[in-house]
Amino acid sequence: MHRFELRVRYGDTDQMGFAYYAHYLRWFEIGRAEMMRAAGLSYRDIETEGISLPVLEARCRYFKPARYDDRLAIETGVRSLGRASVRFGYRILRLDSEEVLAVGMTEHCFMDRNDRPARPPRRLRELLEQAPRLPDEDVRRSREA
Amino acid sequence: MHRFELRVRYGDTDQMGFAYYAHYLRWFEIGRAEMMRAAGLSYRDIETEGISLPVLEARCRYFKPARYDDRLAIETGVRSLGRASVRFGYRILRLDSEEVLAVGMTEHCFMDRNDRPARPPRRLRELLEQAPRLPDEDVRRSREA
Amino acid sequence: MHRFELRVRYGDTDQMGFAYYAHYLRWFEIGRAEMMRAAGLSYRDIETEGISLPVLEARCRYFKPARYDDRLAIETGVRSLGRASVRFGYRILRLDSEEVLAVGMTEHCFMDRNDRPARPPRRLRELLEQAPRLPDEDVRRSREA
Amino acid sequence: MHRFELRVRYGDTDQMGFAYYAHYLRWFEIGRAEMMRAAGLSYRDIETEGISLPVLEARCRYFKPARYDDRLAIETGVRSLGRASVRFGYRILRLDSEEVLAVGMTEHCFMDRNDRPARPPRRLRELLEQAPRLPDEDVRRSREA
Repeated sequence: MHRFELRVRYGDTDQMGFAYYAHYLRWFEIGRAEMMRAAGLSYRDIETEGISLPVLEARCRYFKPARYDDRLAIETGVRSLGRASVRFGYRILRLDSEEVLAVGMTEHCFMDRNDRPARPPRRLRELLEQAPRLPDEDVRRSREA
Repeated sequence: MHRFELRVRYGDTDQMGFAYYAHYLRWFEIGRAEMMRAAGLSYRDIETEGISLPVLEARCRYFKPARYDDRLAIETGVRSLGRASVRFGYRILRLDSEEVLAVGMTEHCFMDRNDRPARPPRRLRELLEQAPRLPDEDVRRSREA
Repeated sequence: MHRFELRVRYGDTDQMGFAYYAHYLRWFEIGRAEMMRAAGLSYRDIETEGISLPVLEARCRYFKPARYDDRLAIETGVRSLGRASVRFGYRILRLDSEEVLAVGMTEHCFMDRNDRPARPPRRLRELLEQAPRLPDEDVRRSREA
Repeated sequence: MHRFELRVRYGDTDQMGFAYYAHYLRWFEIGRAEMMRAAGLSYRDIETEGISLPVLEARCRYFKPARYDDRLAIETGVRSLGRASVRFGYRILRLDSEEVLAVGMTEHCFMDRNDRPARPPRRLRELLEQAPRLPDEDVRRSREA
């Protein structure tokens, strides 16, 4: 899987002393953007070519809290690729301990400039086909992580 | 279901012109806080009594985008209540059209001051038992909405 | 001055137990949007007519912290109106105590669809001329508040 | 000055296509945290020792917009150090062009665990005395950058 590192910032924390739960979806965005960049195509370029990937669904399961100043790794891969949609999978780890803090997924469609469903350009499709793969199991309720 | 209204703000939008997907989890937080307040117990009071409800899982399915200045309604109910956890369900509607823009769920455990699992205080349990109920169907991939 | 009420949400807090300082600028945005709406012209309509008001400068002075679930009032007025720019002033109050928690200002230019400086449309100019006024004193360093 | 690099993320943008103005204050937070870390003392350690640095004032002047996926540099230095407060100064640059996009400052007091003003511990004081210095000119209205 592709790996990208970042830190929990003060503005990410809440009064429980944990990173607020919505920020994980932001970290997922960072993970998929950096995975695509590493594969040779930035999401900015994709949008410039007229295709965007709006989110159809997002899920996150939280196992252990991320705390202020923790160094995290976001691992990102492709779970499944359909004609008109793609699912990414994510794991958030604390770098010092390599503990998995959270796992998640996002599903996206391909949309053209007129906000209509579209086929992805060939270069994007190839990139997603060759991206690191994750088994497309569901994000289950059991605590397997 | 309990209903709370808010507006999409400029800071919620992204360059696609839609509300950024992570903000929906924030709206869910507002929904459950206001549902509890309407039922007679604020989440602030719950925390003051030493119990917090950290999130174990969050899901959101996005059907139509929310846009700047849209008036939204957040509908919130309890999906299921276990000994040590509770699941809330949510619907986000655009007020003008009453279209459902998104549905979601969050699952929480009860935690005491020492970050250990705890039984909810009786008053909180009663509140959650009497809260508006939603069938605990999964947030499915099919586009029923 | 125009007054708009909101609540501090969990996602606004940080591990100090205070509302994170960047959120005040978001509250200022809400204040000026609601002031304009109350005066008869929504910021969405302004943008639809091809004019936007990007921020040139923002300042905030923090006197007392806002905390989770606090009910706040945002007071907004116009400080000064130039040919090509406008300054808004803000006060954030805690509603229960009417304490002033923060004061601030933002300065904006008028920009057309081509990202060029523009004169505001007459209706917007009139609205800003008739909006609640604040003396255009600087947000000073002295702790008067 | 100390320099730290980051990227503008999708969640930072707004429908104008620019980074939303409140995020700059978040970038300032990252800048001062990383400057302190580079000087040998993390802000997490400072808080662990019982001292926090709540913000008294924040200012930002915006010259040119930051856009999605732009690589930015945050330059951070100390503007002035008093007995009970410290002012940091910041510059946000676009890395490709080395253009200055924004400048800003934040002023902080030192606070102990009981939310009372405090003297900074010696190690923190020494760090701030030896940190990169910026002239303590005001963030002026003139467009000099």
